[in-house]
Amino acid sequence: MPANLASATVKGFRFSGVSAGLKTVAGAKDLGLIVADRPSSAAAVFTTNKVKAAPVCVSSERIRSGRLQAVVANSGCANAFTGKAGLRLARESCAEVAKLIGCAPALVAPCSTGVIGHLFDFAKFQAGAAEAARTLSDGGLDDFARAIMTTDTRPKVVSTALKLGGATVTIAGAAKGVGMIAPHMATMLAFIVTDAAIAPAPLRTALKAALPATFNAITVDGDMSTNDTVIAMASGAAENRALGARDLQSFNRAIAEVAGALARELVRDGEGATKLVTVEVRGARSAADAERCARQIANSPLVKTAFFGCDPNVGRILMAAGSSGASVDPERLALWIGPIQVAARGALLTGALGEAKEAMRQPEFTVRLDLRLGKSSATILTCDLSYDYVRINAEYTT
Amino acid sequence: MPANLASATVKGFRFSGVSAGLKTVAGAKDLGLIVADRPSSAAAVFTTNKVKAAPVCVSSERIRSGRLQAVVANSGCANAFTGKAGLRLARESCAEVAKLIGCAPALVAPCSTGVIGHLFDFAKFQAGAAEAARTLSDGGLDDFARAIMTTDTRPKVVSTALKLGGATVTIAGAAKGVGMIAPHMATMLAFIVTDAAIAPAPLRTALKAALPATFNAITVDGDMSTNDTVIAMASGAAENRALGARDLQSFNRAIAEVAGALARELVRDGEGATKLVTVEVRGARSAADAERCARQIANSPLVKTAFFGCDPNVGRILMAAGSSGASVDPERLALWIGPIQVAARGALLTGALGEAKEAMRQPEFTVRLDLRLGKSSATILTCDLSYDYVRINAEYTT
Repeated sequence: MPANLASATVKGFRFSGVSAGLKTVAGAKDLGLIVADRPSSAAAVFTTNKVKAAPVCVSSERIRSGRLQAVVANSGCANAFTGKAGLRLARESCAEVAKLIGCAPALVAPCSTGVIGHLFDFAKFQAGAAEAARTLSDGGLDDFARAIMTTDTRPKVVSTALKLGGATVTIAGAAKGVGMIAPHMATMLAFIVTDAAIAPAPLRTALKAALPATFNAITVDGDMSTNDTVIAMASGAAENRALGARDLQSFNRAIAEVAGALARELVRDGEGATKLVTVEVRGARSAADAERCARQIANSPLVKTAFFGCDPNVGRILMAAGSSGASVDPERLALWIGPIQVAARGALLTGALGEAKEAMRQPEFTVRLDLRLGKSSATILTCDLSYDYVRINAEYTT
Repeated sequence: MPANLASATVKGFRFSGVSAGLKTVAGAKDLGLIVADRPSSAAAVFTTNKVKAAPVCVSSERIRSGRLQAVVANSGCANAFTGKAGLRLARESCAEVAKLIGCAPALVAPCSTGVIGHLFDFAKFQAGAAEAARTLSDGGLDDFARAIMTTDTRPKVVSTALKLGGATVTIAGAAKGVGMIAPHMATMLAFIVTDAAIAPAPLRTALKAALPATFNAITVDGDMSTNDTVIAMASGAAENRALGARDLQSFNRAIAEVAGALARELVRDGEGATKLVTVEVRGARSAADAERCARQIANSPLVKTAFFGCDPNVGRILMAAGSSGASVDPERLALWIGPIQVAARGALLTGALGEAKEAMRQPEFTVRLDLRLGKSSATILTCDLSYDYVRINAEYTT
């Protein structure tokens, strides 16, 4: 079953989101908790940016045990490029939360998103954390999703359920974007929780398997943040039997669906985005070629402004393909915008451009490039580049 | 001596620029000729995009002889992604020019810039070429520079002169941008002519030596066009003696100055650009690291929108550096915006951000990142990303 764009309760977890005053907008939620009733299986992936935020450093240490009981996430401050003081702040925040909920500090993973280079006010954090701990509830996932938003225009929550090992298992996720790049530079956070009983190793396997086609296949502007984090936690409260090979396949597929739905929501809400565009490259000589080519198209400012202008500017798409480093033979390739073929065997199908322009007026469409050189393919989700992207990012002041 | 932003006459060459009706704007110049009195030493470099325009294919064949007598360049149509018909058109255009000026067709190099996927009208070209041949003059370089403009807001001409081998040698250049990426996707053309007597091999050496720090060190949006071409021609009309090693050094330096001044003009006139920003990375572990890091900063949409907004958003610059693949240690690096240091040893110098913002209000400033890990450095010129970039590229329709 596809994942729903709706919140859900997940046995063994409680959630909350409160306003701690870490954001400049008064009353905006900016501190969220995910708390499991007991230590849970956990897995995570983090940014590969060499400038890693303090909470990324702390969380990546802690995830090694395969166990977490809580996540504390704040928006309004990335706690990145903050040196030793930032690490201390991340650890103290976790200790504070551990005390409030009664667990070992090493079982709390911190996440932050917001402006880089600044620390947040610890006294405000303490008061906020106390309120967040007091207001934890089964149905609080939406509040949590609101607390991690920055320039996101809406909270992003998805859920799904499936039969596994004799039990109904629920998987829910929350994320904030916007894309691989963020409003104020410290960006994508995603959380997936499930009540499945599953050990850390297969949970990690499921998460890693889901990434290439979901969070790693989206782009808003090709930049990679210092704070990107995806954490998965499994409480075991569904009390399913040990999962066999077939059950694990179903579980992995469900995790991938939740991750995919969250990733899609991130691009749809990309900064200034008015269109969600799927860039599909097939017929590439190798998987690396397919991905390089799809990414180059998906990240090209010229291609993205043409999307915004509903301009079937085939030349720009071919320019991006040709400069990607992938093998490209202009005499062989074929290109479609939506259902309309616009190029074939080295020539533009000029008669089709009017229809292609119409196809581009849709809020979602696909650009499909068949290189006709091999059997590899890749798909990347992207959005257009609009005036609002410039406005959001030029008018923000440190 | 630095190159002047001014036209010059170059002995042994005549130039022209006329309106042939290849552009949609009535009366706009769109066809230019550079003609040498006799076959000249010539060298050229072309785009490495795998989707190469027809004139790039023809010119790169012809340059192998090291000899050219004429360049015919048009704007308004890139003659790219036009298959065999495009190649035929490029060759016929050269044959037409060869007939008009009385030389072998193989001595004429074609260049085109404009929309991809279309052919230009050969009858219009013929009439325009006849007029261009009729109006060739010593002082016509400015007209030529106008004829190759697309969304360039001004013609780009530079010149310099130096004593070499007992003679005064003049070098002049003309280029159109805007950057490595173009208005309508088929983009950078640059031409350098000199009256120096120099064989094709050392001319090629001078041109190749000039590239890394000039045309290959600029970016408007990181895309690479299908038509990028730089052609250098030397008439020998200065009648200098054979150039010794020291003369060649001076010559190479002068070629680099002309190329550098043209490259700078391209970025300054980048689409929608309001600022020219020099991104300097030093202290990198390797030359490749330095370049990767500088390019990532120079191409980041988040960094470029921050430039537009005069926002000293240090985090975005560090994000780009950290995601570039280069070795980066946040605890060691130092960063300056203009003359203002804004980061040192893992921390933002928040007190300096006000001054940094002032520095960013200048039309030109430098961002200097010292990684403090090694001795390699790289410099890339870039511009900001403004509303006008989106307007120019979204409102253009095929």
